[in-house]
Amino acid sequence: MIDITGTYTDQYQLAMAQAYFLSGRGQVSARFDYFFRKSPCGGGYAIFAGLEDLLVLLETLHFDESDLAFLRAQQLHPDFVESLRGFRFRGRVHACREGDVVFPDCPVVTVEASLIEAQLVETLLLNILNYQTLVATKASRMRLAAGAEAVLVDFGLRRAPGLGGYAASRAAFVGGFDATSNVRAGRDYAIPVSGTMAHAFIQAHDCELDAFRAFAVAHPDHCVLLVDTYDTLNSGVPNAIRVGLELQARGQRLLGIRLDSGDLAYLAKQARSMLDAAGLHETKIAASNQIDEHVIKSLREQGAPIDLFGVGTSLVTGQPDGALDGVYKLAEVDGRPCLKLSESTDKITIPCAKQVFRILDEAGGFWGADAIAIADEPTVQRMHHPSDPNQSLALAGRAQEPLLHPVMSQGQRLRQPTDLADIRRYSQQRLGQLPPEYKRFEYPHRYKVGLSTRLDAERNQLIAAHRRGQTP
Amino acid sequence: MIDITGTYTDQYQLAMAQAYFLSGRGQVSARFDYFFRKSPCGGGYAIFAGLEDLLVLLETLHFDESDLAFLRAQQLHPDFVESLRGFRFRGRVHACREGDVVFPDCPVVTVEASLIEAQLVETLLLNILNYQTLVATKASRMRLAAGAEAVLVDFGLRRAPGLGGYAASRAAFVGGFDATSNVRAGRDYAIPVSGTMAHAFIQAHDCELDAFRAFAVAHPDHCVLLVDTYDTLNSGVPNAIRVGLELQARGQRLLGIRLDSGDLAYLAKQARSMLDAAGLHETKIAASNQIDEHVIKSLREQGAPIDLFGVGTSLVTGQPDGALDGVYKLAEVDGRPCLKLSESTDKITIPCAKQVFRILDEAGGFWGADAIAIADEPTVQRMHHPSDPNQSLALAGRAQEPLLHPVMSQGQRLRQPTDLADIRRYSQQRLGQLPPEYKRFEYPHRYKVGLSTRLDAERNQLIAAHRRGQTP
Repeated sequence: MIDITGTYTDQYQLAMAQAYFLSGRGQVSARFDYFFRKSPCGGGYAIFAGLEDLLVLLETLHFDESDLAFLRAQQLHPDFVESLRGFRFRGRVHACREGDVVFPDCPVVTVEASLIEAQLVETLLLNILNYQTLVATKASRMRLAAGAEAVLVDFGLRRAPGLGGYAASRAAFVGGFDATSNVRAGRDYAIPVSGTMAHAFIQAHDCELDAFRAFAVAHPDHCVLLVDTYDTLNSGVPNAIRVGLELQARGQRLLGIRLDSGDLAYLAKQARSMLDAAGLHETKIAASNQIDEHVIKSLREQGAPIDLFGVGTSLVTGQPDGALDGVYKLAEVDGRPCLKLSESTDKITIPCAKQVFRILDEAGGFWGADAIAIADEPTVQRMHHPSDPNQSLALAGRAQEPLLHPVMSQGQRLRQPTDLADIRRYSQQRLGQLPPEYKRFEYPHRYKVGLSTRLDAERNQLIAAHRRGQTP
Repeated sequence: MIDITGTYTDQYQLAMAQAYFLSGRGQVSARFDYFFRKSPCGGGYAIFAGLEDLLVLLETLHFDESDLAFLRAQQLHPDFVESLRGFRFRGRVHACREGDVVFPDCPVVTVEASLIEAQLVETLLLNILNYQTLVATKASRMRLAAGAEAVLVDFGLRRAPGLGGYAASRAAFVGGFDATSNVRAGRDYAIPVSGTMAHAFIQAHDCELDAFRAFAVAHPDHCVLLVDTYDTLNSGVPNAIRVGLELQARGQRLLGIRLDSGDLAYLAKQARSMLDAAGLHETKIAASNQIDEHVIKSLREQGAPIDLFGVGTSLVTGQPDGALDGVYKLAEVDGRPCLKLSESTDKITIPCAKQVFRILDEAGGFWGADAIAIADEPTVQRMHHPSDPNQSLALAGRAQEPLLHPVMSQGQRLRQPTDLADIRRYSQQRLGQLPPEYKRFEYPHRYKVGLSTRLDAERNQLIAAHRRGQTP
């Protein structure tokens, strides 16, 4: 339905690129940082996702004939449009590892390229990274609530934002989900696919028992029966047990039942008792219907014996946020650091080529701070609060891990693509390094982010120069 | 990046289809209704969008070789997978006109097809219609708040849910937006594209004035300058005025300025005074930054002289909802009506082949009720509340407009595609027919939906049969 080409961008990127082209500044080098300002869902962290998708697209991004014909018909200069025929992204990209735990205000990706190239990829970068990071973070919160044992399945495609559902399934897996109902995402990203049956299947048979039997015949090895079409405890579960015993008599077994309405805690407990009383101890209980991390947490606290959670809307929409506020800000142009002012100091951007150091504790866990430095600083001795000049923190002697790694040079990837399962594993490992205080849902502990002494001085100098007069 | 094929579906559709295939029931006819239960954003209506996209996809939907190879590797029956090689959707579709104003619980689309075909298109249908209807509705609310004169531009791609941003731009236009920043959507859907400049463009020049001048040279006919990079009123607006006067001296003109931070009401008033004092009466003021229908309404109430609103996040995420709760429910199988029970009467589905009649007032406006009837009823004499047996409403003698029209037969469209601009125009016209009480944001008047006497009786009979015993 859509292949990504050069026009997958905002019009103003083309407007700016034309201005650079006509003034002869198009090839001037620029450095942009991608970062966000607020962790999703009121939480204390984000899970970085979407990088591999982005790199694949950057390698081949170009304007096709339809693009060029359309742009010619717009109010753009013909010479500029013609120059886009040869457009390729030939820049350099540094990035955190996909799946890493990341925090507000720290650069997660940096792009170095000509002004034109760097602008023309901005929208694509934001579009991919903002959404996948949002969904991966949401998924990781459900994983935290569910514990390591419970199975989490993405059921979101029907409520997903159009084709965004494709990336949502990928991001959910990165964030710690086990499987998806989205067959196409399963096919393309090697995510395990999973699914049961709908109410329509029950309705389409003369009675519930007939429907269950027909399904069990078709899926003897992985039969999960939906038990709430007519009456969960008086019809659905008893019929499922009957089919479960029939399967057992044939040396097979009923894999599970699914609850999709009503009080899930109460119904799960009742259903578990009924299954156990019938000797179907191995039959699992799946639950779906308006589930999010808070519902999972509550169900766990109530001791609801639910083995699998199917999650749709809240996952793929990243509720309550809906979007990550990630931005792409110019940090350097033609080798000179630059910034954007703002009435609020914490929205003034951070200039220069940077590295981010994560401070580690003795056990290799996260100590609770990321320090942003100028790229050539080997470590950070002291970090300064980005907007409060009275706050700083000594870091000398602490273990520091650089987070930004080169991933693309001259528009070519520097490494083979990483398997999604490896990204997921890495993400879970990194989340394990983050102390629990930062992961709780209510008033999470604030992770500290600061600037190295050199970077802080450089920024203050630029701010002062701007405030003295227009020219820095 | 993704072309829609048969695997763009939930796994359980395939699981059910396999069960139908193996039990020989795959070709049994089925009828499904698409409807939603709650209007988006706490409002009193929805704008139906996405139909044309859906029909295009249904006409060509098939499983490609990658799909078949993937499905063979899953735990699906080889004969069933092989049968999908010839899969085509050959069903019949009735639908409301795209862009129409629609209400909870009324069928908006109905699908008649074999059980297998009808199930295999469910996820795609929901995925497309739920999201586009959500965004179109959100867009229409902003149009209501902004009034007919203000220009509304979609700036959402960067915060959009991945590839969902493509459909979002389309749906925003359907709902009453004027243009989009999304060049690709502009190209493919013939939506006007629009864009200005980013802060980076200013930063990339030695000073703001240089940047403005460079942009004015590159875009003499449609120059809009972003004025908040350093200091809106002390630097941005004065520099824009200077460039505006320079353009004027060359017989050109400054089209507009854009405010992207700070108090938009205050800044717009100040900027308007400054522009007017300089004689730049024709220069427009555009505003962006966290705008939604409530902000637009407030800005209008404050008399802020803003000519153009650029809206991103709230539009493409449909905040605060994030998703429309549209569902696809079985109404008939093998010619027999059927339903799904629920503990709450209002969630019991409505059986039978249906038509929906909109009741009109003498002036051709909407009287305030949609009546759902059995498909062969020519009009509705009395309609009954769907869950309260004590409430009914006489409709005899009132003008009634049937809303569901045949749009596809044997899997082929019955009409040429409708231009998006025509859909938009129709939508605005229909919204104009809806009385203002249903359009207000706070506690909108509740639009009445009911069942014809025959349909109500048919449904009650089925409910009673189900409650007497398993078999209806």
